[in-house]
Amino acid sequence: MSAERPLKVAEVAALAKANLSPMAWDYFAGGARDEVTLRDNRDAWGRLRLHYRVLRGVEERVLRTQVVGQVSSMPVLVAPTAFHRLAHPEGEVATARAAAEAGVIMCLSTLSTVDMEAVCAAAPGKVWFQLYVYKDRGLTRALVERAEAAGCRALVVTVDAAQIGVRERDERNGFHLPAGVEVKNLVGSGFSDVPTPEGGGSGLVAYVQEWLDPALRWEDIDWLRSITRLPILVKGIVRADDARLAADWGAVGIVVSNHGGRQLDTAPATAEVLPAIADAVGGRVSVLVDGGIRRGTDVVKALALGADAVMVGRPILWGLGWRGQEGVGRVLGMLRSELEEAMALCGCGELSELTRDLVTGTPLREDIVELAPGV
Amino acid sequence: MSAERPLKVAEVAALAKANLSPMAWDYFAGGARDEVTLRDNRDAWGRLRLHYRVLRGVEERVLRTQVVGQVSSMPVLVAPTAFHRLAHPEGEVATARAAAEAGVIMCLSTLSTVDMEAVCAAAPGKVWFQLYVYKDRGLTRALVERAEAAGCRALVVTVDAAQIGVRERDERNGFHLPAGVEVKNLVGSGFSDVPTPEGGGSGLVAYVQEWLDPALRWEDIDWLRSITRLPILVKGIVRADDARLAADWGAVGIVVSNHGGRQLDTAPATAEVLPAIADAVGGRVSVLVDGGIRRGTDVVKALALGADAVMVGRPILWGLGWRGQEGVGRVLGMLRSELEEAMALCGCGELSELTRDLVTGTPLREDIVELAPGV
Amino acid sequence: MSAERPLKVAEVAALAKANLSPMAWDYFAGGARDEVTLRDNRDAWGRLRLHYRVLRGVEERVLRTQVVGQVSSMPVLVAPTAFHRLAHPEGEVATARAAAEAGVIMCLSTLSTVDMEAVCAAAPGKVWFQLYVYKDRGLTRALVERAEAAGCRALVVTVDAAQIGVRERDERNGFHLPAGVEVKNLVGSGFSDVPTPEGGGSGLVAYVQEWLDPALRWEDIDWLRSITRLPILVKGIVRADDARLAADWGAVGIVVSNHGGRQLDTAPATAEVLPAIADAVGGRVSVLVDGGIRRGTDVVKALALGADAVMVGRPILWGLGWRGQEGVGRVLGMLRSELEEAMALCGCGELSELTRDLVTGTPLREDIVELAPGV
Amino acid sequence: MSAERPLKVAEVAALAKANLSPMAWDYFAGGARDEVTLRDNRDAWGRLRLHYRVLRGVEERVLRTQVVGQVSSMPVLVAPTAFHRLAHPEGEVATARAAAEAGVIMCLSTLSTVDMEAVCAAAPGKVWFQLYVYKDRGLTRALVERAEAAGCRALVVTVDAAQIGVRERDERNGFHLPAGVEVKNLVGSGFSDVPTPEGGGSGLVAYVQEWLDPALRWEDIDWLRSITRLPILVKGIVRADDARLAADWGAVGIVVSNHGGRQLDTAPATAEVLPAIADAVGGRVSVLVDGGIRRGTDVVKALALGADAVMVGRPILWGLGWRGQEGVGRVLGMLRSELEEAMALCGCGELSELTRDLVTGTPLREDIVELAPGV
Repeated sequence: MSAERPLKVAEVAALAKANLSPMAWDYFAGGARDEVTLRDNRDAWGRLRLHYRVLRGVEERVLRTQVVGQVSSMPVLVAPTAFHRLAHPEGEVATARAAAEAGVIMCLSTLSTVDMEAVCAAAPGKVWFQLYVYKDRGLTRALVERAEAAGCRALVVTVDAAQIGVRERDERNGFHLPAGVEVKNLVGSGFSDVPTPEGGGSGLVAYVQEWLDPALRWEDIDWLRSITRLPILVKGIVRADDARLAADWGAVGIVVSNHGGRQLDTAPATAEVLPAIADAVGGRVSVLVDGGIRRGTDVVKALALGADAVMVGRPILWGLGWRGQEGVGRVLGMLRSELEEAMALCGCGELSELTRDLVTGTPLREDIVELAPGV
Repeated sequence: MSAERPLKVAEVAALAKANLSPMAWDYFAGGARDEVTLRDNRDAWGRLRLHYRVLRGVEERVLRTQVVGQVSSMPVLVAPTAFHRLAHPEGEVATARAAAEAGVIMCLSTLSTVDMEAVCAAAPGKVWFQLYVYKDRGLTRALVERAEAAGCRALVVTVDAAQIGVRERDERNGFHLPAGVEVKNLVGSGFSDVPTPEGGGSGLVAYVQEWLDPALRWEDIDWLRSITRLPILVKGIVRADDARLAADWGAVGIVVSNHGGRQLDTAPATAEVLPAIADAVGGRVSVLVDGGIRRGTDVVKALALGADAVMVGRPILWGLGWRGQEGVGRVLGMLRSELEEAMALCGCGELSELTRDLVTGTPLREDIVELAPGV
Repeated sequence: MSAERPLKVAEVAALAKANLSPMAWDYFAGGARDEVTLRDNRDAWGRLRLHYRVLRGVEERVLRTQVVGQVSSMPVLVAPTAFHRLAHPEGEVATARAAAEAGVIMCLSTLSTVDMEAVCAAAPGKVWFQLYVYKDRGLTRALVERAEAAGCRALVVTVDAAQIGVRERDERNGFHLPAGVEVKNLVGSGFSDVPTPEGGGSGLVAYVQEWLDPALRWEDIDWLRSITRLPILVKGIVRADDARLAADWGAVGIVVSNHGGRQLDTAPATAEVLPAIADAVGGRVSVLVDGGIRRGTDVVKALALGADAVMVGRPILWGLGWRGQEGVGRVLGMLRSELEEAMALCGCGELSELTRDLVTGTPLREDIVELAPGV
Repeated sequence: MSAERPLKVAEVAALAKANLSPMAWDYFAGGARDEVTLRDNRDAWGRLRLHYRVLRGVEERVLRTQVVGQVSSMPVLVAPTAFHRLAHPEGEVATARAAAEAGVIMCLSTLSTVDMEAVCAAAPGKVWFQLYVYKDRGLTRALVERAEAAGCRALVVTVDAAQIGVRERDERNGFHLPAGVEVKNLVGSGFSDVPTPEGGGSGLVAYVQEWLDPALRWEDIDWLRSITRLPILVKGIVRADDARLAADWGAVGIVVSNHGGRQLDTAPATAEVLPAIADAVGGRVSVLVDGGIRRGTDVVKALALGADAVMVGRPILWGLGWRGQEGVGRVLGMLRSELEEAMALCGCGELSELTRDLVTGTPLREDIVELAPGV
């Protein structure tokens, strides 16, 4: 690898790591507890096999698509991730500009370190808003109303964070937001700071326990629909029955996700549960998936297994940490180029040709939970 | 990890190891022969996957439960383990106090290094008695009568020790009880000392061969019922047919256990056999399980697969070896906190919501028996 | 291993590596992207198990066979591989002489560094021609006509190269043809040079993107049949339906191949897909297979699973890189000797006795995609 | 491990290795080609799981049994292995004395380095004779007649050596019999010497190619029955159909064996094929099994899967190489003691209680064929 010419996302990650503080790197890279699901997510895509077709004339590959009725230049979206200014001083604005330039949708996190209005201005028409539901419903409503007013085009409600999954790296590092970095969407509400708790540990654990609502229920999807015209997606689904419920309660889409392995450790890899979920909803809602997508072939596999598009989180952060907006653009460019290559080599010129018969799987690698030797 | 703030059981283990003699560490940590089952037990929980539910309102998590009609503040019991004074000078009394403080039941081993009366006094109403049946049935009867008189609330009969499984670490270390440590429940009977045998090897092998009864039969469960009013549980079951026999012979509960991998090496992991056993008894007896439980998610999985509660052995000993009573309390606190987290993230506020559909399994890691290279 | 007496193909590889430039070694040894398929190909044969028969009188083993009606002294052909002069100054002529001496068929690559007329002269009647279809169909037609005129006996059309699969080793090395080495079959056409592109990377990527035809379709097989009397084989099939199409469109044979793991990474190992493909064509076309064949037992397994013969690529290049013509001969001799040994030990004197019941499989090793640690 | 008190066969192996020449160690320890089957044999037993029974009264364990009507003090026989004087100066006589002392049957190899008459004298009534069929049938007949006359009680015909499987360690070491060691049963026939061939390599390859008969057929079992009254067992069966043929042709027993992984590499592990073979013969012939047996639990598993007894080869040689007759005795004692322990812990006092339901299996470890890196 040359610093000037990384060949793949994994090499961008190594370059980003050199730029980031260990606390920031660990926050972005880590997962919950033993990080079993973190590794599973990534490995599960790699174990699927692509039974490509030949002699089908692939002089053109059309990557352009629509997700919940909105155009994206390829079926790859920017997943919501928190605290971009830990990766680069320009934070979410740099990410948004790169996404807009690439013609893809960016889903902005509630826990943005730039306020949503500035981000939307940087990428008009290309921003969705990820919502954490606070115990304070007035505050929650205000966030939704601001997002709609700012021009966000969809609401992605995170439903797998009834409690925070402990990330042991953050506990060890005493994770906190450094001076000058804050949760900009919540400035003035009293919820914009994430300090290290007294006695040590991760500031995010304290923040989530104190402010976010563990009582969230399906009925709250109804409430959200009553306060906004934005289409609603539900993020954090790993079960077919919950996917059907999301459709029943009026979501227009779901994100098959385990929060990037950052919440319930030993949750299943998203690649493992995607096919049953896609079958269960049968086209009633759009199906997105995230977790461990690092290669163009991973995107092809996700679509072949029933997803309409994928979301990528950490790769975007590596790009941002490496070179800000340019880095994010380079990562999106790599994924686009690999996706084109994979489609051509699969004999598919259209995304609709990515059908289930292209994929076979091998069983998941058995994960060895990290324990002290001899325990 | 900081010595002041271990984040998980595995880190407590490392801290305990630094405090213990190699002989004591190996005695507690080791298993029979090639330690295949020892590793299997631990790995089997880690390989199960939790298909969590979302949006179910988990503002409260109720951990309190009853096991054979007795209240426990959570479905985690202290498994019977021998010789606590090898871990800490206060021995079983420290363990019992921590258990009582945490509101959980402690099962005291026959091979306690503090006498049962003192232990029961330290944790009134929260002690069960684990029974090894000696060839000398008069002695056995006397132990049972003392346990009942001392206030033990149940009898847990170990049935997987017809012969001792050789633990090679103990053979190499010449395992024995050091001066001042003895089997306190048997003082005066002549069975209280465990010296190194002439010619070396483990003193425990000699002890078990000489005194414990390999002729134990189901009929003996009848005999035990005839000499005590205590409810009887049978510990060491790995087969569905034996679980049914336990119910037929009048046990009120079973412990799905392979003796922590310390008896028959290459016995199946308890997580592997639990579901079929739970199905076989169909609620006729209470089902407990031990072996390799190290995480709150392991407890969730055990209950989802049909257990009413779990028992933990080595983690308690690590806590004890690290900081005595306080250490045991910290370990119980970790498990409680992780269990709450796992239930919340599974969308379950009640233990009864931990149903079989939450769990899928991946096949067992293939174990590589340790042999000399090239043999 | 002694340099004078390598015992197996793997040892010849190590000897060749010492002779080759890193750029050449990597070009020959490498695969696409994470090299998952490269490893799968090799591992898949090794995981199959041979249930040998006994007491069947194997004093003679007949290896001689016919492939699409042409005699080969054993069911092992030389696979088409590019740029032999990167391995040895005599290039494809040395390979061809060794093949002819061994009585086996050599399939010459379009991207030969010696012109096809010279190669055919060195191995009369034993050369097939591998065809890449150029966008310039006049040029393509000229290649086919020259091949037929030179005495090539079959045309093997590569169909898994609609686009080149990026080989990261070549990208890093700035792969190019050194001075004095060129694509000899295309001298005068303007397509004979493979320079490093401006800005770095692999010259082969630029070459393929610019000149080869991604629009190739089944209809083009018809066109090829219309311009030559040579029998046509289609190389690069991994699906049963495509194998049937090949028969439908008039191919006389197929090569089950994923281009040696050099095109679509995470394509299935050829050993995994061979049985279903052989069943699908049911004898309508000859079935060859390549990818990862390194042992006589691999050949036995391929034939037992339905192949008529195998092709070997890299082992030939290792022989060539080690000792030119003699080295290729030694590799072919090793494979012949191992094949004889394996047949004898399987109780098979005739190739027709290599039936499906000899083989059982174990599931594929789970591949761990190489990413930067912690990504 | 202490040199004075090895705890298991694997530790005896390490002690033996220190005593043996590298050539002798490699000859005994090695397998064919990539040694895949060598490793499989050993690993396959270790992966099986024992579902033990409890409370069945195992105060006595009866190990005594009969194999083809002959008494053995336990269901463990000494497998035929060649050239014992490479392990110890007293060679096969020391092995035979230890076997007789332990009350077990020893199967003597044709390639003994002590003559069969001396071996039979050392272990009266406890020796069987393993027969290699030479091309020279007069010589073969003479061997059989001498074996019967010397008091051998059964003939074990090796049928998986139509050709020798190349053992690469022996090739590298130039395996040969050192001065003073010869094939004693063939002195005077001209076949007693095994020199290194001119040009290097293994002397055994040359020996087998030249003298042993690749034309061996089932009809030859008839011929052998016509020249001896000894009961005949067929050794080297891995298929159910061949096992049935052995019964049809009048064998009284079979040995499920792949020659210890020394003949056809990637043949299946014997533990994998045993159950189907035992089912196929349904008691018509005695079923023995060898390959990778190193633990008492392995013996229990073999019997549970349908074997009447096991044979052990390398462990005997490790004992012999460590301490001659005493070492062999120690190894047999270890296996007896472990077998008793395993039976007790399985709740089985009789060998007949070792039934199929005691065993479940996990899939075989995927073997990674050893190739040079990057090949």
